[in-house]
Order: sequence, then structure tokens, then C-alpha cells
Amino acid sequence: MISLTNLLNSSNKLDDDVTNKIKASLKQVVVKKGTVLQRSGKMSSNSYFVKKGLLKSYVIDEKGKEHIFTFAPENWLISDIESQSYNSPAVLFIEAIEDSEIEIISKHSLELFKELPQPVIYNELQRLLKRCGTLQRRVLMLMSFSAKERYNEFIKTYPDIVQRVPQRLIASYLGITPQALSTLRKKYK
Amino acid sequence: MISLTNLLNSSNKLDDDVTNKIKASLKQVVVKKGTVLQRSGKMSSNSYFVKKGLLKSYVIDEKGKEHIFTFAPENWLISDIESQSYNSPAVLFIEAIEDSEIEIISKHSLELFKELPQPVIYNELQRLLKRCGTLQRRVLMLMSFSAKERYNEFIKTYPDIVQRVPQRLIASYLGITPQALSTLRKKYK
Repeated sequence: MISLTNLLNSSNKLDDDVTNKIKASLKQVVVKKGTVLQRSGKMSSNSYFVKKGLLKSYVIDEKGKEHIFTFAPENWLISDIESQSYNSPAVLFIEAIEDSEIEIISKHSLELFKELPQPVIYNELQRLLKRCGTLQRRVLMLMSFSAKERYNEFIKTYPDIVQRVPQRLIASYLGITPQALSTLRKKYK
Repeated sequence: MISLTNLLNSSNKLDDDVTNKIKASLKQVVVKKGTVLQRSGKMSSNSYFVKKGLLKSYVIDEKGKEHIFTFAPENWLISDIESQSYNSPAVLFIEAIEDSEIEIISKHSLELFKELPQPVIYNELQRLLKRCGTLQRRVLMLMSFSAKERYNEFIKTYPDIVQRVPQRLIASYLGITPQALSTLRKKYK
């Protein structure tokens, strides 16, 4: 997906008019730890770009258990891609794990992308392809990786947040029990 | 991802020169059931568009167990997106489950996309976003769905192949045992 801030700051090929329209459509917010930015079941196609802090996206299953889909530390974008692309109610909850500064990218902002020039759109296509590649890896991880391989993947994907995220959330992301994670971490030390 | 055949046949907005270059770069093959088109570990960035027949992509874990990533019946495209987007060796095996007619889209063909006009690229971006949405759903399915919900998802995603695919492959795709699948199917009847 698209990091609007980076895009707008780094590219000087953009038409000033489009750039200004997109910039004006973004909304900056500061939220406290524990704030729920998006709830499952609501119609919401926002993306959230993390300027500072840490967000998580998750689902709650029918037994009330939480499953972490992704984390988003600084410079990451988080959104419910399924809801956005199919125009359906959100499946994911999105919540702040730390006090955070967020840039909200609305559906309207995303629609303005239609006006961007070909090379910018082509770059976004390449970026989105990488996101698909990462999701493919996540599926294969959940299907076929051992607990140790899953933990290695987590460290590779999120090298800087291991100390910031509660263990039970990491275990949930990996699809293993907190006990299995604890055993793994002891071996790592 | 991109269905080149559809794209080239349906769009008349394309520059003839680019269209012809892309068409000339595609390779048509006919393969027997059981043919492995791509092996894990090989450098290969091909995509395979199914004109007739049925392909599967899968990984084999360290215990030798096969895990189905996707199926591709007629008009579907199948590829190792991670390998393509990160230019790394293939993770997935791709194999024909039925005698099939395939269009091979090489890395070179994909690179020609860079020359396509903005509206075509923007459409591809929207299509790829849907693919990401589907992968998000697959991750959530593997993390949090019951066996019954998984089976429902499978039928929704692949309405026409239930009778064509061996039960053990469907069970592998769903991440459940063949016994659990058999129980589910009896309830459905």
C-alpha cells in the first residue's frame, strides 16, 4: 500500500495541484494507547500511517480470542485491505498499542491517486506487489513453518519492535502459544 | 496480478506497438497432468495463465508434507509473488493437476508493462489490491476460522472446482485433516 507522506515528500515529479489536493485531504491525529481507530463490522476504508507510536490490527474469533494480523510501527501503513478493495465492512480492528501520532488517509484521499502520473502509479504497483509477496509468505508461514521459523520471520519483518510488544501479542501473531514463544526466547538467549 | 490475455484482448486503448511486443513475448504450452512447471529453489519469475485445465501451487515442509497455497482453474493466473517481487528463488512448486493449456508470462513480459498507459496501470493497481485483500482473508482464515467457515470460503473462492480436486488437496488448502473435511462434506449433503 501507499505511504502518502513519503510519496508526497520525496517526489517532485508530481503535479502541484494533485499533491496539494492529496495533502489537504489527510488528517493528523494524536491518540492514546488503547484507542480503537477502527472496529470490525463498521464501514471504514481509512488507512493509517504511523508517524510515531505503534498500532496493531486484529480479529476476534467466535470464542472471543484475539488474533493479530499485523503490527505497524513508525513509517508503516496499516489498513483493512479486504474491506478497502471490496468496499465491504471492516473485518479488522485497528488499535494503538502505544500513544501514537497518526496520519489518516481516507477513501477520498486514495481516490485522488487516480490523477497521479504513470510513473508514480507504476511504482505503487511494484510496492503493492511486494506487499502481496509478504502476505504470501505469511500464509505459507501459518501453514508450514515451525515455531522457530515463525519467530525468525517475525524478527526479520519487525526488527525493532520485539521489546515494545507484549509477548502474548507476538505469540498471537505467530499462531503459537505464549508458552511455546517463551521456550523459544530462552533458547535464543 | 495481471491476466495478460484478457488485458490484451479487451483493451483497445493500448498502444499497438506495446501490445504487439507483449503478445510476442508470451509463450503457449500444453502440459500433461503431473507436469511440474516450477520447482522451489529455482530462480524463476514466470507467471502462468490457465487457458484450460487446472494448476496448483504448494510448498513442502521439512517433514515432507505438502501444503496447498492456491489452485488455478481456467482464466486464473498463478505465480510465486514473493519470488517475483523480491527477485529471490522460488518458494512455491507449481504443478498441473489436469492436462492443461498454459500461457507463460516471463519476467521480460512483465517488464513491458512499464510502457503501458496510466489508466491501464491504475486498473492493475486496483486488481492487485483485490489480490492483497484475498490474501489478507486467507491469513485470517488460517488464524481464526473454524473448519466449517474455511470450507465455505473455499466454495466461495473456487465454486467450480470442488468436484475436480482430490479431497486431500482441498483439506491441505484449508489446513484441516482429510477426516475433518469428510465430516464437513457429509453434513453439507
